[in-house]
Amino acid sequence: MFADAVMAIAITLLILDIEVPTVGGRSLAVALGRQWPSYAAYLVSFLTIGIGWINHHHMFRMIRRSNHVFLVLNVFLLLTVAAVPWPTALLAEHIHDPESRRIATFIYGGMGLATTVMFNVVWRYAAGRGRLVFEELDREELRRVSRPYWKGPPAYGIATLLAFWNSWVSLALFGVIAIYYLLPSSGPRIERLSATS
Amino acid sequence: MFADAVMAIAITLLILDIEVPTVGGRSLAVALGRQWPSYAAYLVSFLTIGIGWINHHHMFRMIRRSNHVFLVLNVFLLLTVAAVPWPTALLAEHIHDPESRRIATFIYGGMGLATTVMFNVVWRYAAGRGRLVFEELDREELRRVSRPYWKGPPAYGIATLLAFWNSWVSLALFGVIAIYYLLPSSGPRIERLSATS
Amino acid sequence: MFADAVMAIAITLLILDIEVPTVGGRSLAVALGRQWPSYAAYLVSFLTIGIGWINHHHMFRMIRRSNHVFLVLNVFLLLTVAAVPWPTALLAEHIHDPESRRIATFIYGGMGLATTVMFNVVWRYAAGRGRLVFEELDREELRRVSRPYWKGPPAYGIATLLAFWNSWVSLALFGVIAIYYLLPSSGPRIERLSATS
Amino acid sequence: MFADAVMAIAITLLILDIEVPTVGGRSLAVALGRQWPSYAAYLVSFLTIGIGWINHHHMFRMIRRSNHVFLVLNVFLLLTVAAVPWPTALLAEHIHDPESRRIATFIYGGMGLATTVMFNVVWRYAAGRGRLVFEELDREELRRVSRPYWKGPPAYGIATLLAFWNSWVSLALFGVIAIYYLLPSSGPRIERLSATS
Repeated sequence: MFADAVMAIAITLLILDIEVPTVGGRSLAVALGRQWPSYAAYLVSFLTIGIGWINHHHMFRMIRRSNHVFLVLNVFLLLTVAAVPWPTALLAEHIHDPESRRIATFIYGGMGLATTVMFNVVWRYAAGRGRLVFEELDREELRRVSRPYWKGPPAYGIATLLAFWNSWVSLALFGVIAIYYLLPSSGPRIERLSATS
Repeated sequence: MFADAVMAIAITLLILDIEVPTVGGRSLAVALGRQWPSYAAYLVSFLTIGIGWINHHHMFRMIRRSNHVFLVLNVFLLLTVAAVPWPTALLAEHIHDPESRRIATFIYGGMGLATTVMFNVVWRYAAGRGRLVFEELDREELRRVSRPYWKGPPAYGIATLLAFWNSWVSLALFGVIAIYYLLPSSGPRIERLSATS
Repeated sequence: MFADAVMAIAITLLILDIEVPTVGGRSLAVALGRQWPSYAAYLVSFLTIGIGWINHHHMFRMIRRSNHVFLVLNVFLLLTVAAVPWPTALLAEHIHDPESRRIATFIYGGMGLATTVMFNVVWRYAAGRGRLVFEELDREELRRVSRPYWKGPPAYGIATLLAFWNSWVSLALFGVIAIYYLLPSSGPRIERLSATS
Repeated sequence: MFADAVMAIAITLLILDIEVPTVGGRSLAVALGRQWPSYAAYLVSFLTIGIGWINHHHMFRMIRRSNHVFLVLNVFLLLTVAAVPWPTALLAEHIHDPESRRIATFIYGGMGLATTVMFNVVWRYAAGRGRLVFEELDREELRRVSRPYWKGPPAYGIATLLAFWNSWVSLALFGVIAIYYLLPSSGPRIERLSATS
């Protein structure tokens, strides 16, 4: 509930980062066009948090109970998700200058890396030795669920390091990672779903 | 839950777009009066998201289960809803200049069009061949439910295109569309409602 | 759910209206002290939305089902609640100038009046002829519940009109109304409460 | 629900307090580095609200029913939680100047003190004479649950008063208090937990 709300708020706050140009007349079209990095950053960050929510949603369906450590780990996961609007704004602000774009891309990727690492930490804690998950889930099922999650940290890590070489390639890779997780084939899911979503 | 929260946040953030005039004395009344486009934009956007919520609420009562594709489509629907505060602010900012008002109206309408198209995509996916809906709902019932939804894209499309000719007519039509969906007669509903809303 | 979220967001956004003074050194204390109208406005508006939530919470416990008209009326109620941060900021901005304070107080009171009127409209629709409420509730019980709600519109109406004569008296009265509704004795409640709140 | 949402929003709004530096080129790295107080304030405030949520979550699992007084006390608790983004921004703004840092630290601590006092008031009211809690919970269990809560007010009180002597020591202590409550050993919990969190 709380986690859902934090992700919902972070995803909705992203729109506040897109400025409203004040130049009047026909030049408004030009001003809007020059804002494209803001739109791209909005799109990628929205999809990234959206994927985070979908995976969190899948994860919580398998969790039977919680404990203090699990809640604390969740707070740290939410800390990284709730922070996303800031590196997004940073990136949109510095997209046109090569030097500062490199720094902003590196920070943007670093936040994504932190999110995906924390996601794995939370899931690992819950699923490890079947600690907090439903007993019907056997080891093989849990391993199948975990597989796409494990790919996150190395993928974000590589994309982040690429920022030192070429920030455009790095940014394109963040988009590719988002699309990968959106695909239905992005990993096996256990299909025992209730109506509420 | 997540969808409800995103729509609730987007609808509540709209108020941040209305500025607080700083001129003192009696001229405050004049300054407030000149802000009327902000109030009108707030009203229309609030009702538009409000209708989106009501229809989403009706829709989810008919949905029995979800899957990965459905959640991904929902994320794209929420992307269009969460973006509404931005074209609303753009429109309020540029309402007084004919050239830039035309552009702002076109973008405002385009966002509304995207929202209503995504709404139909989500519902189509869920209801098509009874994929995710309750089995008690027969084809005829689903068709009756879908009918008012189908009217959304052409209505928004026409209102958006009218912005090229006269943006006031276009804006008035957005208001009329909102009022149409608020009316009790705006389409048949299946009345099996629980207390929670 | 949606209504709870909208009220929760509106109540939390109020803090964004309080500015952070940038003057350094000891004069920070002075700058903070001069901001007292912002703190007072925060307090009164927070309590007003908080009371709105408590009453909404009480109301929804008595409601068994919903329909399209009820949801639409709720959207209009939420429109007035979600708008509260704006008149609050307006009032805090104009508290020091007699002329503009009068106007801001009038608008602040007008918004409160609109909220309390809409609250009564929603409840009236739900409870009228027992339309949407639980059948166990008899006429006498519903009348007892409604009584404190009815007092809202005249109280806010009088406090708002007093702004023309003396805005301090008017503002003090808004505080008194808030305190009245916070008191346990502010009206009979039907005590059949579940754990969730 | 409402309380969860208010805490989720307050915790997510914290990110809006971190500014996006606009200086380009390599000096962006320097500008980002100089913002460290904002990051530290974000971290401590995020963890503080996060702990508040965890404890509130634990508390509500033990509560069976609510009443008007309990809801009103909750509104006052939420008032202190929802206000956290403001002293956080105040502290980040004034961290570099010794005089104003002292004032900002004092206010920051005062808000934390108010939150922890209100938390105890709410819990005291609910648990006192077993008023609103589940009947299975005996006096001894309730006393064990309350113990870590009681430590909050004196801890925050001391840390706040230390601001007069040395604000760095005071700030470090706020971090230590947060870490203490995050530890699994921070107090006995009653482990009868359901899946929803």
